[in-house]
Amino acid sequence: MNKLFIIKIGGNVLDNPAALNSFLKDFASIKEPKILIHGGGKIATKLGDQLGIESKYINGRRITDAQTLDVVTMVYGGLVNKQIVATLQTLSCNAMGVTGADGNLIKAVKRPVKDIDYGFVGDIKAEGVNTALLYFLLQQNVVPIFAPLTHADGSILNTNADTIASVLAVALSKHFDVRLIFCFEKKGVLMDVNNQGSVITHLPKKRYDELLPQGIFADGILPKLENAYAAIQTGVKEVLIGEAKDLLKNTGQVTEGTLITL
Amino acid sequence: MNKLFIIKIGGNVLDNPAALNSFLKDFASIKEPKILIHGGGKIATKLGDQLGIESKYINGRRITDAQTLDVVTMVYGGLVNKQIVATLQTLSCNAMGVTGADGNLIKAVKRPVKDIDYGFVGDIKAEGVNTALLYFLLQQNVVPIFAPLTHADGSILNTNADTIASVLAVALSKHFDVRLIFCFEKKGVLMDVNNQGSVITHLPKKRYDELLPQGIFADGILPKLENAYAAIQTGVKEVLIGEAKDLLKNTGQVTEGTLITL
Repeated sequence: MNKLFIIKIGGNVLDNPAALNSFLKDFASIKEPKILIHGGGKIATKLGDQLGIESKYINGRRITDAQTLDVVTMVYGGLVNKQIVATLQTLSCNAMGVTGADGNLIKAVKRPVKDIDYGFVGDIKAEGVNTALLYFLLQQNVVPIFAPLTHADGSILNTNADTIASVLAVALSKHFDVRLIFCFEKKGVLMDVNNQGSVITHLPKKRYDELLPQGIFADGILPKLENAYAAIQTGVKEVLIGEAKDLLKNTGQVTEGTLITL
Repeated sequence: MNKLFIIKIGGNVLDNPAALNSFLKDFASIKEPKILIHGGGKIATKLGDQLGIESKYINGRRITDAQTLDVVTMVYGGLVNKQIVATLQTLSCNAMGVTGADGNLIKAVKRPVKDIDYGFVGDIKAEGVNTALLYFLLQQNVVPIFAPLTHADGSILNTNADTIASVLAVALSKHFDVRLIFCFEKKGVLMDVNNQGSVITHLPKKRYDELLPQGIFADGILPKLENAYAAIQTGVKEVLIGEAKDLLKNTGQVTEGTLITL
């Protein structure tokens, strides 16, 4: 099967124009089929503030009420997404900005209300991905650029960008050897959180299970790692967690970040 | 060649939720290949006001400075576009929201500054349309939903929705028998502006040339008519100017609005 890179970037790149431009140049130069997923957090909060819409969080997770939904639809699906597409187009990358609603690429379910009502949030599974249309777009040398939005029952829904990246990777593993790449602000998963150079270069599940009880991992990295192993165990060939600046190395043979395999 | 309907709707539909929902039900039920282009004006101006961004106009035409560009990108390319897509998806219509930047579907040129600097506005021609990708999408039963935005040199650009509809129609007339439909608030081009029932049912160029010097046409309809004849004379089979409510009749054999042919 052919290689496919599914690459996710977040605020640390998006909120820094120089870093974003540098990243997009690297991304555009990747020859293999690829998909980009972007977040958008800070910009949406800032716009919400300007419009007098309060950003609500419970346990660190955003509550998406109707007004907030409009803001994230505008910012993630409009502003951030289209600016990335326009930039990539000048770099000879035939980017096409999409949400899960477009072409029914990712059908979601609105998160049921239990203890907390998260509002207009979409939960997704690999079965909800329109792999046929994605495959067709990739064959046409179109590069899908996903905003972190999905849909259900006539409503756009807010969905976590890491989750979208993972679900796309699992779904497309039917057709491709997928390397799922999470770009963040550090060089990789660190053995010692105080030593930026102490990257764990290869972290198979066995090693993760040994290191976990030793309290090695920073709290912030745990959701990314859990995500990664869930993906690996459902068919994704490789997951790479690393720095945005190392994108070209991390899409190569000898990676700089933390490579996760079975 | 197969039929293709290229349909444009504006503020009179977009700003009225009941009218929009009714229109989208009709649109979704059309069996032939189709494309929708939407405007967005009032909503963008309203958001701009809330953000304290002044809407500037010269000779009735909006000046798109950098802040206004962000607003229209968010509102046209994000909010309006994705809400329409999400609604159509529930009506079993595989809508895909796009701007001219996405998939390089419409490449523009930033309007050169002469007497007036219109700012970030894109001028477009049929040669700038990526007909190959559009054709492939239509073959996949994807329904493109165009926001009135294009791109050039890494920038999103504001482009008039009527112009986008016309340029798409001309470009796609290579592959399809196109009926270009402009939906507005009246039943058609009126013989007597004070008599809503006086629709001119068929208005070939000859008849238009005869009626024009008689001062029959309301000022507001003239740009639409000029647009229509330009399209007809560059290969578009038919142009229909009529009411959004009559969409299903106006995509049929016996139309309610004003049909324009050579």
